[in-house]
Amino acid sequence: MARPRVRVIPLGGVGEVGKNLTVYEYRGDLVMIDAGAKFPEEEMRGVDLIVPDITYVKERVDRLRGILITHGHEDHIGGLPYLLPQLKSRAPIPLYGSALAMAYAEAKLDEAGVLDLAEFHVVEPGQHYQLGRYLTAEFVPVTHSIPGSFAVALRTPLGWAVHTGDFKFDPTPPLGPPTDEARLRELGNEGVLLLLSDAVRVERPGHTPSEAVVSETLYRVIGEAKGRVVLTTFASNITRIDQAIRAAYRHGRKVAISGRSMEQSTRIAQDLGYMKPPPDTIIPLDVAVKLPREQVLFLTTGSQGEASAALARIASGEHPAIKLQRGDTVIFSATPVPGNEDTVSQTIDQLFRRGVSVVYSAIEPTIHVSGHASRDELRFMLRLLRPRFVVPIHGEYRHLALYRELALEMGYNDAQVLLPEIGNVLSFGRDSGRREQTVESGAVLVDIIGNRNVILRQRDEIAASGVIIATMIVDRDSRQLIAGPDVSAQGLDGQIDAKVLKRAEDELRRFLEKRQKGGFSYGYLVSRTKNVLSRQIYRDAKIRPMILPVISEL
Amino acid sequence: MARPRVRVIPLGGVGEVGKNLTVYEYRGDLVMIDAGAKFPEEEMRGVDLIVPDITYVKERVDRLRGILITHGHEDHIGGLPYLLPQLKSRAPIPLYGSALAMAYAEAKLDEAGVLDLAEFHVVEPGQHYQLGRYLTAEFVPVTHSIPGSFAVALRTPLGWAVHTGDFKFDPTPPLGPPTDEARLRELGNEGVLLLLSDAVRVERPGHTPSEAVVSETLYRVIGEAKGRVVLTTFASNITRIDQAIRAAYRHGRKVAISGRSMEQSTRIAQDLGYMKPPPDTIIPLDVAVKLPREQVLFLTTGSQGEASAALARIASGEHPAIKLQRGDTVIFSATPVPGNEDTVSQTIDQLFRRGVSVVYSAIEPTIHVSGHASRDELRFMLRLLRPRFVVPIHGEYRHLALYRELALEMGYNDAQVLLPEIGNVLSFGRDSGRREQTVESGAVLVDIIGNRNVILRQRDEIAASGVIIATMIVDRDSRQLIAGPDVSAQGLDGQIDAKVLKRAEDELRRFLEKRQKGGFSYGYLVSRTKNVLSRQIYRDAKIRPMILPVISEL
Repeated sequence: MARPRVRVIPLGGVGEVGKNLTVYEYRGDLVMIDAGAKFPEEEMRGVDLIVPDITYVKERVDRLRGILITHGHEDHIGGLPYLLPQLKSRAPIPLYGSALAMAYAEAKLDEAGVLDLAEFHVVEPGQHYQLGRYLTAEFVPVTHSIPGSFAVALRTPLGWAVHTGDFKFDPTPPLGPPTDEARLRELGNEGVLLLLSDAVRVERPGHTPSEAVVSETLYRVIGEAKGRVVLTTFASNITRIDQAIRAAYRHGRKVAISGRSMEQSTRIAQDLGYMKPPPDTIIPLDVAVKLPREQVLFLTTGSQGEASAALARIASGEHPAIKLQRGDTVIFSATPVPGNEDTVSQTIDQLFRRGVSVVYSAIEPTIHVSGHASRDELRFMLRLLRPRFVVPIHGEYRHLALYRELALEMGYNDAQVLLPEIGNVLSFGRDSGRREQTVESGAVLVDIIGNRNVILRQRDEIAASGVIIATMIVDRDSRQLIAGPDVSAQGLDGQIDAKVLKRAEDELRRFLEKRQKGGFSYGYLVSRTKNVLSRQIYRDAKIRPMILPVISEL
Repeated sequence: MARPRVRVIPLGGVGEVGKNLTVYEYRGDLVMIDAGAKFPEEEMRGVDLIVPDITYVKERVDRLRGILITHGHEDHIGGLPYLLPQLKSRAPIPLYGSALAMAYAEAKLDEAGVLDLAEFHVVEPGQHYQLGRYLTAEFVPVTHSIPGSFAVALRTPLGWAVHTGDFKFDPTPPLGPPTDEARLRELGNEGVLLLLSDAVRVERPGHTPSEAVVSETLYRVIGEAKGRVVLTTFASNITRIDQAIRAAYRHGRKVAISGRSMEQSTRIAQDLGYMKPPPDTIIPLDVAVKLPREQVLFLTTGSQGEASAALARIASGEHPAIKLQRGDTVIFSATPVPGNEDTVSQTIDQLFRRGVSVVYSAIEPTIHVSGHASRDELRFMLRLLRPRFVVPIHGEYRHLALYRELALEMGYNDAQVLLPEIGNVLSFGRDSGRREQTVESGAVLVDIIGNRNVILRQRDEIAASGVIIATMIVDRDSRQLIAGPDVSAQGLDGQIDAKVLKRAEDELRRFLEKRQKGGFSYGYLVSRTKNVLSRQIYRDAKIRPMILPVISEL
């Protein structure tokens, strides 16, 4: 009989940035590390979210010993509300992770109404968590752009398998402990079979700056500001939010938060003690807007230019409470995620048109630093762990390929470095690593109608089951509808007749006519079109086809 | 009577990057500087090109003394084939510019069949060109990423108006003369009323590196390469192409060019003596592919990830002649223009998947340098010219706003720095600069059907005149059509009946079915859909509505 091997199957997060999910298996035990989601690209109109296809895990759910969460970012926990219901486990599935990651996951599952599907285990560094018969997990603190970030070390009968999660080596993190180099070195001494390493920043030479660099810049920039200050960053970047609050406090400014996701994330972080803002510094928004302009800082969502976020509404002058004028300052303490460059630029231009001073990374490079390891740090991780086999993850294909070059430069050989694609089964013995077959895998499209009505579709099912296409043309400047909506069906023959289609189109037209005044944002048109058509077509024809809103601009 | 003033009207290139066009007027004399085009953004499906609305000039064509071209880039000359026919001038319109810019313009007008509408004047530095009664132009050499680049100094009765065009101060340009600082300083001494300055790189501190830096990097990178080398850059970047050829020559490689626009641009540059490659270095493609892999370098189009360019076909393995394998190298000697980041990244990933080494600016920063002035250079230009009034141009609004801050820091006051929007009339006397009314202006959409069938439409006409929408869904991976085409009409009541529409849809479906094999690129579907539908609808209904191909991906 063949000797048992460690099997690793990335079901997301390789050849892409987003929806991280990796399966580890040894004999009868299976664990998942992370369960992320990804936002769709521009051309995938009508899709709200993308999660990994976990058919492989579904078919082996009796062997699933738990889901280990490295940290609480969307691309690591965002898939949970859609993936847990698919697993159809008889008992709640154990989730392991930091208190912050568990609290964020809990809030997500609660909102989706599936809280009972999970069982939460808050982990402590240095503890060992038994996962079935053969596997044990240890969580090793790492620094990243959210507190409570861990690398996962899985003890297998063949040695340690270390999964870095997202990490950098920040010797002076403003919140939380630094990456535990001592423990990583020990793991290396104990024997690491396999390293799966974050590779997304392999293009950058040297060492990513410490998050502490941003503290200094924020202190200086906020100090120079004369009027109101608005600062935007990711809602989950608790470290950054904490630093902004401290800088505001030292300059005698109160802080108010605008944006639901940021209010929620900071409340949770405070409740759990990750963040301890100076007393009486955070005040309600309605109090803050009455303060003198130089005595307040607003923390807002919208750092990616999202049309519905607080900052976009501030930029267009439509925010109900926060109005800006010449002499005020907006700080972007984040860089655009690839794909968002245009919307971020448009928001910056709009703010400049209001006479506001805008501070962003192109003109103030240390207003933001990355949470990911640069080349020197990637090499250092390899040096500490000295793994026999190496697999780069968390990156586009070019990042994985460049990581291989880096490992080869350090003396690894071609047989030791495996470049994965989604669904590849990578199998490791003590002396051999190889790619075996590819399992069913890919992307599942998540369609959210109304509040909790979630529909999951395999990509290749969609063509077969038919789609409804709603086309509209919008004037670029006025944002008024200048043609449409026009509703048509594709591949739904026999399931829907012309009358139903016509009624749905009329319903949508009436709905939009009533709301024509202010002009339509792209996001609003997409979500309303989906909701109105889906409801009407379900009522008349009792089917829920995919709705594809297509909005052209002229 | 009011004293005559110099009037400046930017009709494009402000609050945007692209379609540069500025009108200068003094009493009865009017000149245009540049006549650029711009590529449409993603959401403007079905539009091939955008050019400025020149209604203002059309209504005053009898006063138009000429079009002065700063240099031969698309965003400065690309509008000529569409704008000249609109002007309906009785005599050919005089164009002024460098030999290279004139040759590129001539090729464009010839291709569009409108060569007789222009009269070409190749200018020399130091010469003065009389433009009507009151205006004289002098062309001052500047360095940029194409040889034959000039700033234009317009002598007006109120002093010099200097229009920088695109420039940087490169003390060691590999081709052509450096920016003529001495002459700029003289102009400053003679008295500059007004400076219109390139502002697009104002976010960058310091000084843009010399183009000579790229020579060193190219020499090193090509020297390290083992197999075939493919280098891609803009077809018009003659300086870069010349450097690549020299580096190849010094390493014993022959050079072959693939890509129609690059073949044309280099042929013209050689004919005019801008480029003098070492003899016997450039060889035909069919000869080059038979050489040993380490003895050849291919220069190709496609640095922006364009689907139909040579490099995209190399990356997908579909190039008829150039095949790459592990050990070969592809060099991107260009950075993505905003909006092209995704397609460039996809091309890089695809090349890495073939095992090719890819060198690009994220990992080799000096493989490309900008042709535009950074902050120190922008300040230096102001110092040389000491203009009374300053207007930033050539940039998004944030660039114009940051340039104003830079000028204010140098001691200018609010009344001296005017931030323009498209169509603003800026008017200058010896002691006053002000914004007057806004004239009819904006964007004209260019629709190209087949070879030479060009339709120009004002944006706001389109809704009124109706559109045809063709919807299709394509599988992301296989690039097969999985639904559609579905053709519908909006706002064309009475002009087109259901039968015509059905016949056009059937025609398009038949056309696509015949070509289903290899899968469809986005660009191919858009252009074929427009051509097939336009032809069929014109045949049946004798109208030419705008065709909007809408391609969703799943």
